[in-house]
Amino acid sequence: MHIPSDHPRHRSLKTRQMLEEGVRNGLVTPTGMIAHGRGEAFDYLLGERTTEAAREAARAAAAHLLLASHPVISTNGNSSVLAPEGLKVLSEAVPCQVEVNLFHHSEDRVKRLVEHLQGKGLKDVLGTNARESIPSLTSNRALCERDGIFTADVVLVLLEDGDRTQALRDMGKTVLSVDLNPLSRTARTAHVNVVDELSRALDVIVEYIEELKTCPESDFHKIIEIYDSETNLKNAMNAMSKHLQSQ
Amino acid sequence: MHIPSDHPRHRSLKTRQMLEEGVRNGLVTPTGMIAHGRGEAFDYLLGERTTEAAREAARAAAAHLLLASHPVISTNGNSSVLAPEGLKVLSEAVPCQVEVNLFHHSEDRVKRLVEHLQGKGLKDVLGTNARESIPSLTSNRALCERDGIFTADVVLVLLEDGDRTQALRDMGKTVLSVDLNPLSRTARTAHVNVVDELSRALDVIVEYIEELKTCPESDFHKIIEIYDSETNLKNAMNAMSKHLQSQ
Repeated sequence: MHIPSDHPRHRSLKTRQMLEEGVRNGLVTPTGMIAHGRGEAFDYLLGERTTEAAREAARAAAAHLLLASHPVISTNGNSSVLAPEGLKVLSEAVPCQVEVNLFHHSEDRVKRLVEHLQGKGLKDVLGTNARESIPSLTSNRALCERDGIFTADVVLVLLEDGDRTQALRDMGKTVLSVDLNPLSRTARTAHVNVVDELSRALDVIVEYIEELKTCPESDFHKIIEIYDSETNLKNAMNAMSKHLQSQ
Repeated sequence: MHIPSDHPRHRSLKTRQMLEEGVRNGLVTPTGMIAHGRGEAFDYLLGERTTEAAREAARAAAAHLLLASHPVISTNGNSSVLAPEGLKVLSEAVPCQVEVNLFHHSEDRVKRLVEHLQGKGLKDVLGTNARESIPSLTSNRALCERDGIFTADVVLVLLEDGDRTQALRDMGKTVLSVDLNPLSRTARTAHVNVVDELSRALDVIVEYIEELKTCPESDFHKIIEIYDSETNLKNAMNAMSKHLQSQ
């Protein structure tokens, strides 16, 4: 179906179309569609804009990524289909690797997603060589690459599940995440969670990466030190609550 | 996948499973999965419970249904898969017809959904004989049955789109709806919208149908007269906003 570019819901309809295509190509699962719908609702409550709270979290995430000795971006089906360009730009700006890491894991699906991302111009996409396991996660969803997530010190997980976020934290890693639901386990478990729509969140993190690159490393430490995740999530909730009240 | 009945998210996981099966059987569309996800998020914000605002709306909906000379329940893919039992009980309690009416319309899909509902014990399910059109809606989604929605005076639309709600209103019908998003066009356009999860909403409407059946008709008129949709939606939003703030 052709969506006219002046349609008021153009962007969100386009996004849905991309995901539907992703389901047809075996990149996105039906459960992934439900997760996207949840995200849509929370974004609606945010007024579909990047809040001050999201900017603060993005800045802290950028500082963590720049200080890391081995940062990795963990991407799943939804995030790979929704924001390949953002993934490419961020992975080049840091720079860092991108690893496909799936809840509904199959070798075939990982391979398709790696090829999808390579087709979008990403180099160094990991996932097909997953021989290590994240402790405390069961089944194939635990699988990850030795030279990727398994040995990373900072992992940015996109649209992830709470279990995985906790498991990565239990491994001693710093976990950053992007999740529109400020009440989700991912948001509450990550060291830094950006409550924003994925493409917008990646854009803002990249903005801060570029800005911080011109600053001394001591600034990164300060940013991380003053960042309080609980307060940030409260601020995100307040923004939603205010938007609801203003309608 | 077997979901243990003591799992904290048992109900919502079961529901997702039913929808995934619905996608496999051609009853539910991928877009329907996204819509369900949006509903999940709003229900989460409600604390997954029926609010006082929802009870008030359900009471007004019950009064409209009992006063109607030709009430019809309009059901789509998601609602038919999510709450066939509720549909059966409500259609028998009023009593009224149920018509399958789809946004992503195809004769085959309507037929499958009618058979699905008949398999769940519903009698008098319309939809396969749709020869009339709802004015101002384009394409096949306008199709409806002459002896069903087309000539109904009161239509209860479940998990519907805003366009259809408006189009039915433009035909001079009283439109009742169930939609978890108090900001949606459906919720704002319907005469009465119940902001509640579908199965819970149908249960509460049935409760009020049974209660009001023992009351004089003048009571129904009073209930309808004092009902103010805008205030009700505000109250639903306040409930969500309060729940957010209390987290």
